[in-house]
Amino acid sequence: MKILINAKGKKFLAGSEDLHTDKGFIKKEEILSSQPGNVLETHLGHEFRVLEANINDYVELMERRCSILLPKDLGVMAAFTGLGSGQRVVEAGTGAGAATIFMSNIVGEKGHVYSYELREDFAVVAEKNIKEFGLENVTVKCADVVTRIDEKNIDLVFLDLPKPWEVIENAKDALKFGGYIVAYTPYIDQVKLFTRILKKRDFSDLKSLECILREMEVKDKGIRPKTRMTGHTGYLTFGRKL
Amino acid sequence: MKILINAKGKKFLAGSEDLHTDKGFIKKEEILSSQPGNVLETHLGHEFRVLEANINDYVELMERRCSILLPKDLGVMAAFTGLGSGQRVVEAGTGAGAATIFMSNIVGEKGHVYSYELREDFAVVAEKNIKEFGLENVTVKCADVVTRIDEKNIDLVFLDLPKPWEVIENAKDALKFGGYIVAYTPYIDQVKLFTRILKKRDFSDLKSLECILREMEVKDKGIRPKTRMTGHTGYLTFGRKL
Amino acid sequence: MKILINAKGKKFLAGSEDLHTDKGFIKKEEILSSQPGNVLETHLGHEFRVLEANINDYVELMERRCSILLPKDLGVMAAFTGLGSGQRVVEAGTGAGAATIFMSNIVGEKGHVYSYELREDFAVVAEKNIKEFGLENVTVKCADVVTRIDEKNIDLVFLDLPKPWEVIENAKDALKFGGYIVAYTPYIDQVKLFTRILKKRDFSDLKSLECILREMEVKDKGIRPKTRMTGHTGYLTFGRKL
Amino acid sequence: MKILINAKGKKFLAGSEDLHTDKGFIKKEEILSSQPGNVLETHLGHEFRVLEANINDYVELMERRCSILLPKDLGVMAAFTGLGSGQRVVEAGTGAGAATIFMSNIVGEKGHVYSYELREDFAVVAEKNIKEFGLENVTVKCADVVTRIDEKNIDLVFLDLPKPWEVIENAKDALKFGGYIVAYTPYIDQVKLFTRILKKRDFSDLKSLECILREMEVKDKGIRPKTRMTGHTGYLTFGRKL
Repeated sequence: MKILINAKGKKFLAGSEDLHTDKGFIKKEEILSSQPGNVLETHLGHEFRVLEANINDYVELMERRCSILLPKDLGVMAAFTGLGSGQRVVEAGTGAGAATIFMSNIVGEKGHVYSYELREDFAVVAEKNIKEFGLENVTVKCADVVTRIDEKNIDLVFLDLPKPWEVIENAKDALKFGGYIVAYTPYIDQVKLFTRILKKRDFSDLKSLECILREMEVKDKGIRPKTRMTGHTGYLTFGRKL
Repeated sequence: MKILINAKGKKFLAGSEDLHTDKGFIKKEEILSSQPGNVLETHLGHEFRVLEANINDYVELMERRCSILLPKDLGVMAAFTGLGSGQRVVEAGTGAGAATIFMSNIVGEKGHVYSYELREDFAVVAEKNIKEFGLENVTVKCADVVTRIDEKNIDLVFLDLPKPWEVIENAKDALKFGGYIVAYTPYIDQVKLFTRILKKRDFSDLKSLECILREMEVKDKGIRPKTRMTGHTGYLTFGRKL
Repeated sequence: MKILINAKGKKFLAGSEDLHTDKGFIKKEEILSSQPGNVLETHLGHEFRVLEANINDYVELMERRCSILLPKDLGVMAAFTGLGSGQRVVEAGTGAGAATIFMSNIVGEKGHVYSYELREDFAVVAEKNIKEFGLENVTVKCADVVTRIDEKNIDLVFLDLPKPWEVIENAKDALKFGGYIVAYTPYIDQVKLFTRILKKRDFSDLKSLECILREMEVKDKGIRPKTRMTGHTGYLTFGRKL
Repeated sequence: MKILINAKGKKFLAGSEDLHTDKGFIKKEEILSSQPGNVLETHLGHEFRVLEANINDYVELMERRCSILLPKDLGVMAAFTGLGSGQRVVEAGTGAGAATIFMSNIVGEKGHVYSYELREDFAVVAEKNIKEFGLENVTVKCADVVTRIDEKNIDLVFLDLPKPWEVIENAKDALKFGGYIVAYTPYIDQVKLFTRILKKRDFSDLKSLECILREMEVKDKGIRPKTRMTGHTGYLTFGRKL
């Protein structure tokens, strides 16, 4: 997936069709034949650099109809579960597909992400996003994980759902020995209930984390944490099938 | 790599030789032929479950002669750089190899981690750790990245060094267009100097982050953040070659 | 100082003149003769409750031409210096007078706040605010603490200035044995320089603190930290004359 | 209350009797007639400086049989309630008296702290601590605030109790119009229940805060937040009688 960046750093998804901007257009063919780092010009002579989009570039620009998980939470989730190349993951719900794309990028072509989404409109957009970015290791399913998880021997079940505790039974069946279940929930009350049922279902290594991310402002006159920050997104609650 | 877990949840690295514990021993052959989830017994009749070690299990148990990066920081680093399967990474310094193993696990067999370590004693231990865990996509080099980085077209240069700014020039040569440089540094003064030189060398998307991780304590009498927490590990400072 | 609160909780400073609102007016005399908790009506029949303003009510409504210190930082400052009734404080700069009013409220009529402000326009507004609120233990001086501090035997010198290190010499003369100097500074670089000079001037008990305040959102559907929070205001750096 | 400090900065409560240290002793009379800043010598010739103890010096050294509230939380509580000279406060439970002394120091001789403690052993120690420090504006009562609060027209009711919601009814009667109730509680579940009942009892300006205090380490080789920090003490939940 290519991205074009203008002089001000603004990014545009590109490649499936001609790029039309308020500074003129660039032909699809020209984009397709370009290499990362090349400079292309619109018919009005404005320059755009070509970049191979990484997942964050793409997620920033793709269509979304719902809020998405932030890199900070996805990163902590991946690190504490040891997510890696070749793993097989079940996810619910898909939403716009940001977490899906994040995990797909890590598990790679030897791995697979099975992503369940109840709402058909979300599933359609997520599928489009995933296809557009060229990911071939993802299956989006418009289905309910509370009813049924088809897969077995899964490394990670990742839940971004209001009632993740309803999935614990099915997740346990789907997980391999040593696999992880993780729920992302904004409310502490959800952490409590989810943890209680994980415990009852004999999950091990229970842990509930919150990642507070501070960005530093580095200016000539000095360094300080930024004045504005996100106060809270959600808690990540982990259990392991042992 | 297999791990054996006793009834209390204590873990033991296993497989390259017989396991000797204070509850008796288990033969190497028995361990090798076991499957994850199996229960093995020592000659004294104590039970151990078999687990396929994930990277965190292993890093926790492996030999180390220096402090290691925590999953929270590695996760945030990976998420903000879009680290994924198939990527090629340069790292310095290797230390005990915790970050190396983390990245190796993500980039997978299509990717590669080139890890530079100045101190030979550290490099030897890291190499041993990496081999023991069975990773084949890592090259440990006892060499100085300030002098020279051999690789080109790299996706990520990750620096855990006291003076990461000395590597910026070489990192820029090694990186592909769109690739990232990241420094992990405990002191704010290092953030300042590193950022200043990144800027001078025309790196884009400069960002400096600190991940504060809070663990929640979920007990019958209530929920609260844990009383003890790590106050600070280090800052992650990012630049991108654009 | 009285405040009138309407049905929606909106507050209005009142008492020095008739109150005019978009729901009608209330006569000055009526306000003056009312008691806290009374309900007054505008000539159009809209109800307002009478409240004796505390300092936070007042600071929220008073005139200001510059940003003010937040209660979180003032509270931590007061707690770590043992600020109390009867103490004598030197402050610079006054700004709109929020910190002045905070300290005046604590030191009470047996104590005193000497507040230095370089800019005459700020000093005039601060003086007006302080008089209007009825504080009699404050002296606002349009003067430079770097040049001279007139007072001796002071319990606390509180500095909200860009270069607090320039005041250390004069502060030391003004402080009593056991008294505190505190600087509020947004940048870490200021913390560094201020601390270095405090050390050189033999101040004891050096400490630099940051207060991160999280507000919880308690709703029917659950509890969570608020999504929005202030990421950073300033550091409080303490020294003690011992 | 005087304190003697040795060359290493160690502090000793002094004045009610001779001071005996491992470096020799100093006579009570000598201590009583000394001034802050004076240097006294033990009979063995070791020097101690005389300091008028502020509340933090004293709280650090006084007898305690239970954990105490930290300055960070007391400061935030005082700042958000506008606690000041001349105010009248009801507190429960007294514990060792740290919060009592903090509030006593602020409300001064025109104010008063009525401190309720159920356990007689705690009340006895607290009373001793308060008398020893010379505070005359405190009344410690060995009684249960759930049963009865004797005072009226109170500015602040501060509760450090496991079930602060049981006191809401009595607190409302005791408070003046515009007065505050504050509960300090370690668990989020307590915040939830307390807030719910405050709401039902028509308290206004409900707010629940957590103060996370970070200490900076300023050394020659650089600045960083300290590695160790307290992860959590308690939440402060506020209501106002309006």
